[in-house]
Amino acid sequence: SDALEIGGQVFYSRLFLGTGKYGQLSAMQSAISAAETNLVTVALRRMDAPFPAKDKQGNKKENQSLLSYIPEAVYPTKEIRQTVHLLPNTSGARTAKEAVLAAELSREIMETNFVKLEIHPDPTHLMPDPVETLLAAEALVNKGFIVLPYVHADPVLCKRLEEVGVAAVMPLGAPIGSNLGLSSREFLEIIIENSAVPVIIDAGIGSPSDAALAMEIGADAVLISTAIATAADPVAMAAAFKWAVRAGRLARRAGIASKGVLGEATSPLTDFLS
Amino acid sequence: SDALEIGGQVFYSRLFLGTGKYGQLSAMQSAISAAETNLVTVALRRMDAPFPAKDKQGNKKENQSLLSYIPEAVYPTKEIRQTVHLLPNTSGARTAKEAVLAAELSREIMETNFVKLEIHPDPTHLMPDPVETLLAAEALVNKGFIVLPYVHADPVLCKRLEEVGVAAVMPLGAPIGSNLGLSSREFLEIIIENSAVPVIIDAGIGSPSDAALAMEIGADAVLISTAIATAADPVAMAAAFKWAVRAGRLARRAGIASKGVLGEATSPLTDFLS
Amino acid sequence: SDALEIGGQVFYSRLFLGTGKYGQLSAMQSAISAAETNLVTVALRRMDAPFPAKDKQGNKKENQSLLSYIPEAVYPTKEIRQTVHLLPNTSGARTAKEAVLAAELSREIMETNFVKLEIHPDPTHLMPDPVETLLAAEALVNKGFIVLPYVHADPVLCKRLEEVGVAAVMPLGAPIGSNLGLSSREFLEIIIENSAVPVIIDAGIGSPSDAALAMEIGADAVLISTAIATAADPVAMAAAFKWAVRAGRLARRAGIASKGVLGEATSPLTDFLS
Amino acid sequence: SDALEIGGQVFYSRLFLGTGKYGQLSAMQSAISAAETNLVTVALRRMDAPFPAKDKQGNKKENQSLLSYIPEAVYPTKEIRQTVHLLPNTSGARTAKEAVLAAELSREIMETNFVKLEIHPDPTHLMPDPVETLLAAEALVNKGFIVLPYVHADPVLCKRLEEVGVAAVMPLGAPIGSNLGLSSREFLEIIIENSAVPVIIDAGIGSPSDAALAMEIGADAVLISTAIATAADPVAMAAAFKWAVRAGRLARRAGIASKGVLGEATSPLTDFLS
Repeated sequence: SDALEIGGQVFYSRLFLGTGKYGQLSAMQSAISAAETNLVTVALRRMDAPFPAKDKQGNKKENQSLLSYIPEAVYPTKEIRQTVHLLPNTSGARTAKEAVLAAELSREIMETNFVKLEIHPDPTHLMPDPVETLLAAEALVNKGFIVLPYVHADPVLCKRLEEVGVAAVMPLGAPIGSNLGLSSREFLEIIIENSAVPVIIDAGIGSPSDAALAMEIGADAVLISTAIATAADPVAMAAAFKWAVRAGRLARRAGIASKGVLGEATSPLTDFLS
Repeated sequence: SDALEIGGQVFYSRLFLGTGKYGQLSAMQSAISAAETNLVTVALRRMDAPFPAKDKQGNKKENQSLLSYIPEAVYPTKEIRQTVHLLPNTSGARTAKEAVLAAELSREIMETNFVKLEIHPDPTHLMPDPVETLLAAEALVNKGFIVLPYVHADPVLCKRLEEVGVAAVMPLGAPIGSNLGLSSREFLEIIIENSAVPVIIDAGIGSPSDAALAMEIGADAVLISTAIATAADPVAMAAAFKWAVRAGRLARRAGIASKGVLGEATSPLTDFLS
Repeated sequence: SDALEIGGQVFYSRLFLGTGKYGQLSAMQSAISAAETNLVTVALRRMDAPFPAKDKQGNKKENQSLLSYIPEAVYPTKEIRQTVHLLPNTSGARTAKEAVLAAELSREIMETNFVKLEIHPDPTHLMPDPVETLLAAEALVNKGFIVLPYVHADPVLCKRLEEVGVAAVMPLGAPIGSNLGLSSREFLEIIIENSAVPVIIDAGIGSPSDAALAMEIGADAVLISTAIATAADPVAMAAAFKWAVRAGRLARRAGIASKGVLGEATSPLTDFLS
Repeated sequence: SDALEIGGQVFYSRLFLGTGKYGQLSAMQSAISAAETNLVTVALRRMDAPFPAKDKQGNKKENQSLLSYIPEAVYPTKEIRQTVHLLPNTSGARTAKEAVLAAELSREIMETNFVKLEIHPDPTHLMPDPVETLLAAEALVNKGFIVLPYVHADPVLCKRLEEVGVAAVMPLGAPIGSNLGLSSREFLEIIIENSAVPVIIDAGIGSPSDAALAMEIGADAVLISTAIATAADPVAMAAAFKWAVRAGRLARRAGIASKGVLGEATSPLTDFLS
């Protein structure tokens, strides 16, 4: 009854997982299972084909490898695919043009029209480019994609993306991989207040308490990657995030009391011995 | 296997509940049940006896009412008592002497030698008195009590309380009733690092994310009162805290990754299209 | 020797002032004087001309009023103009087109090619539009303006603005008028680290300590409006900001020590009595 | 007109300096001068006398060295002493008894009845002991000292110290030497609200913005040690703190505007182009 709908797809879990940083495939699969997630992001990986295709002149074909040889590693198992939706991302794209190409390849290979749009020209902090993201979002919506753009926590940009037809917005909580939590909290609150599409907080969430807070301020879902993949025990951490997201969501719906230094006395009994 | 032991008693839940602020008895009972807690704090309530006992000279007996007429309201139901341990508090005491008296009355009436020691001379913020608390703690330990003192997040005081034999320390997270969370975080971390007895964070926790954070930094348990009792839906909020405490505890054990602005690239695939 | 240069103009003070929120003209003038600022922002105000100009057909001329009737109130006094540079802003513009028009009117009327580019379609939070801002910035640079854009604390956008030739970037510290300080601190630090043009923190700074912090993390200047104009005593507050900006700038240059809970003993004398 | 009075002594500067962490005597003297402070704390240093005094049996006298051989290094120059008041501290004392002894030695040697009472049994974090501090404070007040105790930011303890007659309280902002600023802010605000004696924030202040904030929330003065002494340029940093303290104090008196995300529009001109 509290399910989340994005692009016509229903998600019972509000915890989404990234898959790019696991050391081992088995750890990733176990973490996905423990998280009880319904959505994982996956990236295409470029590999050289063992026998590269060549054109008539004998030259190696551009991008041939990409289309033909997707490593098994980026796919969760068949068991996982029965309950988990794949969300291809455009990680690595630096321009709208590259992102649109990546999205089209993903759609063909992964057989889904969902795409997490990521465009980050900066190799250090992997911050998203607002202008290219808006351009690519509009193009992809027009090509029939269900677009979920990764963006700075910029309320105006989120609104403009909504206007061009994205299915959800994915503002960052903090610099990617930083585990700093909700550095952009005040801006996220404005985005959530104004958004007509689901708001999924992506990047920066470092621990379950951050995820719970994201849900408490009204996020519709969170996407966790580094914080689970680089934990000492990723499987236990995945379960911890699962509980935290439920806790935060339930608290949001239960009506969180307001803050303020001057509380009432905690007890009606303070005059007990007087 | 991850149970908490205090004074020879084993607690499977690390979420403790205060009972002083519920509007209705039934809401309190349902919240206790939803929280799956093993420990609730209760306070004595002073009532005038309808027919005050008198001594042989016909004078009204001091404190007679207290000993004889404990309102049912402060007791959870029999069903609850089978799984929930009662922790009487000395709320309302302003001096060590008053607190010792309140503890002795509680022991007699509630048939437990556990006591949450609270001494707060300040009626506005209900901040604990460090000096009277240490005095009372030592006296109560000598009288055979299992003492859990509510204190400021003062590392030296916590160590001195441990030295006089308290069973746990209960430093405050933030001003009582403020819902501000872990205002005293840096000091709590020092207390946790140095304590040989369990550390239970009491007061100020306003939402499940705060409780998860308390557990993530290494608290052994949290005590929640205002944040559940004054939520729009206290029963749902109790469940939310239950999950958040589990999430935080599990995350602590799973090894939380460190924070830092300059994360690695989130994905090995960033050179995908180059 | 520590002067700031923007667009060929030298500024000895790193405290810039907004003028839009003063209740009285005299308070504004006194505050500008007390702040010892070298730069104030001013906005055009639309007034209906008492006798609107008409064209040959007798129709009222579009924008006639704007060109002809600029209220004296928005101009500081002649004395102020000898040491204070005026920075017209495009406040009220909702698109690149409107902003370019406003900039051109300002240049004609105020006789300066400096412009603070503000485009905020959202009337509630006055958040800047990243896409329109980049478009307008490029257009204005091409028209010979010295462009200082007000932007979200978005590192990629700041870099792109730099690439189209802006003279400085003006990222926001927190939602405008909120007095929350440096909500976007982590992102400001990344912007400062990477910027080849001066970084002026605009919006959200609520008190002198916020301004000092902005300078300590490496901002080149700060722009203060609400926090001075709405203080109980704006003139004293202007002086307070003047000192705080100097303090923060000097501290930045003096090398701030790093943070960390485990300090060394404060004194070599701790074994004094042993 | 805004001078601070403590124990009958008037202080024109609200910036107090610690002297224990300078690498060089000359740097300390220049920093004191640049800070324009009226009060510095100094500690006794134990040195072996070159020719230790012996008693009649030829045994080395206990504490002889302390009484007779105070190194010049701990004294500021004569020039400084004309405007700067010395505040001996009891650094190194672990009990009330040791602190009282140290205070008495300081009074004899330094010819002042002011004493900064510091009792920290914990050698790692140098946190103050609340119980011993209260005991020593009462004893020292009774011996005619002007007592300024260094304490945890504990509102009840500060009130009790005030009741035994201390001249000011010196709660910590954050763990000593941590440069974390005002970690204990919410508690400091309660102390300031309730205190009848001056409140001087001691320990943890890491940069001028922290000092400005301390003054903005209503502290009467701040004591800075590590943050100046360990700066790359201590003299410039001392000047930076001087300005920041003035800025914060002036802002407090000028009436700081309140915080809140939903500011009014910054300008009355937002409908400029409509």
